[in-house]
Amino acid sequence: MELIKDLGEHELLRRLKAYCHPHLVGDDGAVLQVSEGMELVVSSDMLVENVHFSDRTTPPYMVGWRSVAANLSDLAAMGAYPLGITVALSLSPQTPWHWVESLYQGMNDCLKSFHTSIVGGDLTRGEVSAIAITALGEVKPEQKILRSTAQIGDSIVITGNHGLSRAGLEILLSPQKYQHIDQKTQQKLILAHQQPQPRLDLLPLLNPYHPITGMDSSDGLADAIIQICQQSNRGAKIYQDKIPIAPEILQIADLNTALKWTLFGGEDFELVLCLPPKKAQQLINHHHSKTKIIGEITEEKKVVLIDNNQPCSEHLLTQSEIFSHF
Amino acid sequence: MELIKDLGEHELLRRLKAYCHPHLVGDDGAVLQVSEGMELVVSSDMLVENVHFSDRTTPPYMVGWRSVAANLSDLAAMGAYPLGITVALSLSPQTPWHWVESLYQGMNDCLKSFHTSIVGGDLTRGEVSAIAITALGEVKPEQKILRSTAQIGDSIVITGNHGLSRAGLEILLSPQKYQHIDQKTQQKLILAHQQPQPRLDLLPLLNPYHPITGMDSSDGLADAIIQICQQSNRGAKIYQDKIPIAPEILQIADLNTALKWTLFGGEDFELVLCLPPKKAQQLINHHHSKTKIIGEITEEKKVVLIDNNQPCSEHLLTQSEIFSHF
Repeated sequence: MELIKDLGEHELLRRLKAYCHPHLVGDDGAVLQVSEGMELVVSSDMLVENVHFSDRTTPPYMVGWRSVAANLSDLAAMGAYPLGITVALSLSPQTPWHWVESLYQGMNDCLKSFHTSIVGGDLTRGEVSAIAITALGEVKPEQKILRSTAQIGDSIVITGNHGLSRAGLEILLSPQKYQHIDQKTQQKLILAHQQPQPRLDLLPLLNPYHPITGMDSSDGLADAIIQICQQSNRGAKIYQDKIPIAPEILQIADLNTALKWTLFGGEDFELVLCLPPKKAQQLINHHHSKTKIIGEITEEKKVVLIDNNQPCSEHLLTQSEIFSHF
Repeated sequence: MELIKDLGEHELLRRLKAYCHPHLVGDDGAVLQVSEGMELVVSSDMLVENVHFSDRTTPPYMVGWRSVAANLSDLAAMGAYPLGITVALSLSPQTPWHWVESLYQGMNDCLKSFHTSIVGGDLTRGEVSAIAITALGEVKPEQKILRSTAQIGDSIVITGNHGLSRAGLEILLSPQKYQHIDQKTQQKLILAHQQPQPRLDLLPLLNPYHPITGMDSSDGLADAIIQICQQSNRGAKIYQDKIPIAPEILQIADLNTALKWTLFGGEDFELVLCLPPKKAQQLINHHHSKTKIIGEITEEKKVVLIDNNQPCSEHLLTQSEIFSHF
C-alpha cells in the first residue's frame, strides 16, 4: 500500500493539484473576483481525526463530502453563493495515499454538484489527520441572512426533515441491531449521514421574501432555534405536532427517541428561517416540498416546546439540555 | 492551572470572542466588504504542534505572532492589503488556558500592527494542537504580484537580509553554545525568528513599478528564486557577492554556514521581486534601505549561483539541494 511518507511532499502536491482549480494554484494566495455590489462571506471549519471522523463510521470519500457540505451549508445559512474553498490538510505520514485520494474525490464531487472548487490550501504533516476548510461566498447585502434579526411574531420555517443523519449514524454504529430494517430505508438514512446536501438550492427561491433571519441546523434543530433567539434577543414557541418526524426514523426508533433525534440530532444541514407569517406561508405555497412552519418568535426570552395533544405541556429547550443529550 | 477541559466550550468561546472583530462574530460566517474594483486574495496555512512549533523554541505568544505574520506575508507576496483572517483551532483538553490566551495575544498584536483583525473561525478539540489560518486580502488587479510573469533580463530584488530567523532558531536550540555572544545580537536574531515582520509596509512603495513578479521568502531565498523561475518558465543568475550577509549572523557562524542560512534558512518573510533593471534601480534609489539587486532572470531554465571572486564558479541551485540542507 502506497503511504504518504513514501510519496514525498512534491509528488503529493502534484497529485492533489489535480483536484484544485487550475488557474488559481501556484502563488502565495488565490485571486478571486467578488461580483460588483456583493459582500464577501467567509466561514472556517476544522475537522480532526477521531473527533469528527473515524474509519469506523465514515469512509474517506464521505469525510470529504461531509466536510465540504458543512462549509457550503454555512454559506447557504448566510444566503451566500459559493466562490470556492481552501483546504489546509495535516496528514500522518502513515496515511495511505488511497485515503487522501478518496477524501479529495469526496470533496470534489460535493463541490462540483454546487458548481464550485478548491482554490487554494496548505499541506503539512502531523501526528493525526486534520482538515481545515475555509468557504468563501458572496451575497447581495439585502439578501444576507443573519441570526440576530428575528422579530416577534415571525414564523419559524424549516426546509426539510431532521434527525435522518443521526439515525444514519445509529445504523453505522450498530449495524447488527438494525439488520432486519429494509435496505432502502437503511441506505436513505446512511446517505443522509454520509452525503448531506447543503441547501444552496433554496437561495433563489428565497429572493422574494427577504429580509429573512436564520441559520443552518448543523448542530441540531433545537440548537438553531436557541441560537437565533439568543442572537435576536427573543424567544420562541415550537409546536411538537408541527415538527415532521421522518417515517424512516420511526422504522428504527420509538417516537420518543425519534423526536429527540429530530430536535437534537444535528448534521441535517437544513435551513431554519424566520420571516413574517404571511411571507412564510407564501414561501411554503410556492415551494411544494418539505418546507414547514413549526413555531413562532416570541417576546419572552425562552424557547418552549408545546405538545398540543397534552394540556399545559410546555417543555423548556435550553443549550444545557442539548449538551446533556450527547 | 486552568486547563481547557475545565473551562468548557462556551466559556472558552466567550473568552476568545474578546480577540475577534466584534461585529463579525455570531453568524455562520463573517461578512466582509471587498472594495470596488479590487480582487480578493486568499491564503491558507496549517500549523501543527511538534511540527511547526514546540514549547522548546517558541512561547505561545510567538506561535501566534509567527502564524499570523506568515499569512500576512502571503498577502504581501501577492501585493494585497489585509481584510482580516479566520482562525480554526484544534486544542488538546490538557492545554492550559494561559497558553491559548498568549497565542491569541500574539496573533492580535501582529494583526493590530497591520490594522487588521480576526473575523471568524472555529474551535475544536484534538489530540494535538493545530492552528489553521486563512488570510483574506484585496488587491488592485494591476498591482497583483504573481510568480509566473518574470521576464528575461528582469533584475531580482530582495527587500532585506536573509538568514536571521534561521540564526535565531540556532541560538534558541543551543543557548549554551552561544552564551558568549553579546545580548543585543542574540536578541535581534531571536526576535527575527519569533516576531518576523511581513513586508506589507512595502506595498505602497511598489505602486509606481508594477507590473512586478515575485513572492515572499518564507521557505528561503533560494526556494523563492527557484519557484519564480519554475512558474515563469525561466532561469536565474544570482551573484554571491551581491547577497548581503547580516553581520549578526557572522558573529555566530562561519561564512559558509552564514551563506547557507542566508540562501536556505527560510522564515525571513522578505519579498523577492523581479522587474526591469531600470525600474529595479529606481525602486532601490527611492527606498533607502536594505533593498538590493542580487541577480537577474535568464532564458536558460536553471538557477545558478555565481561567485565572482572565483573564476568559473557556477553552483546550480535546485529544489533537491534545498531539501538536503534541512
